[in-house]
Amino acid sequence: MTIANMNSIAEFENHLKTLPGSNKGFSDQAAAHQDILTKPQGSLGRLEEIAIWMAGWQRQVKPSTDNCQCIVFAGNHGVAAQGVSAFPPEVTTQMVENFKKGGAAINQLTDAAGATLNVVALALDKPTNDFTVTAAMSEEECLSALRAGAKAVDKDTNILLLGEMGIANTTSAAAVALSTFGGTVQQWVGYGSGIDEKGLKLKQQIVANAVDLHTQNQNSSFDILRTVGGRELAAIAGAVLEARHLSIPIILDGFISTAAAAVLLKDNPAALEHTLVSHLSAEPGHKKLIDVVNKKAILNLGMRLGEASGAAVALMIIKAAVAAHNGMATFDEAGVSANE
Amino acid sequence: MTIANMNSIAEFENHLKTLPGSNKGFSDQAAAHQDILTKPQGSLGRLEEIAIWMAGWQRQVKPSTDNCQCIVFAGNHGVAAQGVSAFPPEVTTQMVENFKKGGAAINQLTDAAGATLNVVALALDKPTNDFTVTAAMSEEECLSALRAGAKAVDKDTNILLLGEMGIANTTSAAAVALSTFGGTVQQWVGYGSGIDEKGLKLKQQIVANAVDLHTQNQNSSFDILRTVGGRELAAIAGAVLEARHLSIPIILDGFISTAAAAVLLKDNPAALEHTLVSHLSAEPGHKKLIDVVNKKAILNLGMRLGEASGAAVALMIIKAAVAAHNGMATFDEAGVSANE
Repeated sequence: MTIANMNSIAEFENHLKTLPGSNKGFSDQAAAHQDILTKPQGSLGRLEEIAIWMAGWQRQVKPSTDNCQCIVFAGNHGVAAQGVSAFPPEVTTQMVENFKKGGAAINQLTDAAGATLNVVALALDKPTNDFTVTAAMSEEECLSALRAGAKAVDKDTNILLLGEMGIANTTSAAAVALSTFGGTVQQWVGYGSGIDEKGLKLKQQIVANAVDLHTQNQNSSFDILRTVGGRELAAIAGAVLEARHLSIPIILDGFISTAAAAVLLKDNPAALEHTLVSHLSAEPGHKKLIDVVNKKAILNLGMRLGEASGAAVALMIIKAAVAAHNGMATFDEAGVSANE
Repeated sequence: MTIANMNSIAEFENHLKTLPGSNKGFSDQAAAHQDILTKPQGSLGRLEEIAIWMAGWQRQVKPSTDNCQCIVFAGNHGVAAQGVSAFPPEVTTQMVENFKKGGAAINQLTDAAGATLNVVALALDKPTNDFTVTAAMSEEECLSALRAGAKAVDKDTNILLLGEMGIANTTSAAAVALSTFGGTVQQWVGYGSGIDEKGLKLKQQIVANAVDLHTQNQNSSFDILRTVGGRELAAIAGAVLEARHLSIPIILDGFISTAAAAVLLKDNPAALEHTLVSHLSAEPGHKKLIDVVNKKAILNLGMRLGEASGAAVALMIIKAAVAAHNGMATFDEAGVSANE
């Protein structure tokens, strides 16, 4: 029984309840190694924390970043027809073509960071249902998207970057976050790709209506994804779960990716331990989301593009952390006097 | 007359008063280019700002990061004998050896970021004078260090990273910052490489004494560097000035590098326009310093190592910014619909 082959909600939920943890033996050894490297202890700050964290998840004192996989999942949303985005719905398909031709931001950023880019287009010709009217997906559609996410994970990858493309998917992500964590639409709904004030009010109303409609049927991660999620969001959740069972650390991108992963906390509060949040998005709900899931973004660069763009930039920081950890000489090796 | 050959304070001050600026034509063209790339306008946040800024200084719409030079200047300080560091003074020389053998953090980080590393050791067998007793350097010693900094700059570099190594140089940097910008020793003096509370009090007293002793003779950037600076700090200032006349953008490292560069503001408030501050150091004076010089650190990772380590990590962000700017397709090229 693997996640990529699961055939029922019960199987999904069983996978989500039985999560392996980080290996404390390896992270402790990595921490001890950091303390004898030629620098004042702790002086590499977050880089030290990241290297130690990577060691625990990769189960090796010196983690590797040789194989870095970035997956961008793309999906279309029925709710897009209500005009919640600054861009028309056909842009999802057009951008997938742009990814394939190498012209998008994520192509340049994964090249610069040294990651393989995989683009997984999920039934773009069949948008999800408008979730202000009915559930976004059937059970089988949602399971299928979860499986697609799990299947896309390369089991040999050292670290996995997750991102998305989908016109109207900040609307879906806001509905997912509201359904998972409560709060108000004002806290979760933002300008997305660049709507105006009037558009923002409409988007808030749509998210409120959707969650009102579905809230009684949102007792699990699966139900939230099915009712107000989207295919690319479910795929991200599936990839997060698959990577956990493979002990592959993950770099989440921005608001949408974090929301898609965070829905898993509804069933298991430990579900995001193997993930880092790459950056604090300019989409305002992301700050609240990062706080709620108790993470600390690595970067704060005012980005709000999606596509895993923030994850790709953060990968560079992870590579720097691992390079210092793996390559530095110890005080003894270098003949440098330790502190007095 | 070049900066690397200047023979008098008057020549230095003339170079510092006649600074070329950024080219607005190229930065405007770069901004217009950003606006037609396949992403919502502004959605790459700081990455867009950096690419546009680079275009202005490099005087080309598509900036280059092919040749990245990192220089670490090393110097010894007479004041180290007073026990202001957690490490003994011989560590400066030992770390220079470590740099040369490839074992330090900066070796791994410049390798990871793709920068050439040059280490310039400045008369390590002749520490500066203890500046609580007399001026740290003679006029000729200070000029010599400024020249060494200027000489080390590769005129073909696309972007220059500046860092330092020198036991006790946070003490010197705090004295330079206090002399340049005023304030209190509590604001500028921190734990450096890891001293205790007792050491902190001693360090504060030493900085106060030094600035009291020299304040009447600190009417210029040069005088501040000469009286309470160090060779590596003066070299950084010389490199900042040389790079400006070559229109080479600079990434400053942490507290010491920023203080060494910022002293130039005493004579010319435009002196740091061609510099970025790579990261917010955990050394507490750095936040105040960044505020005073009106910069916004690119990263905040709790680093406090020096060696240009923060600059090397930030170079990765600059490379990401330039890669996106130079490589992305436009809406027209990709056949993607623009926003409505």
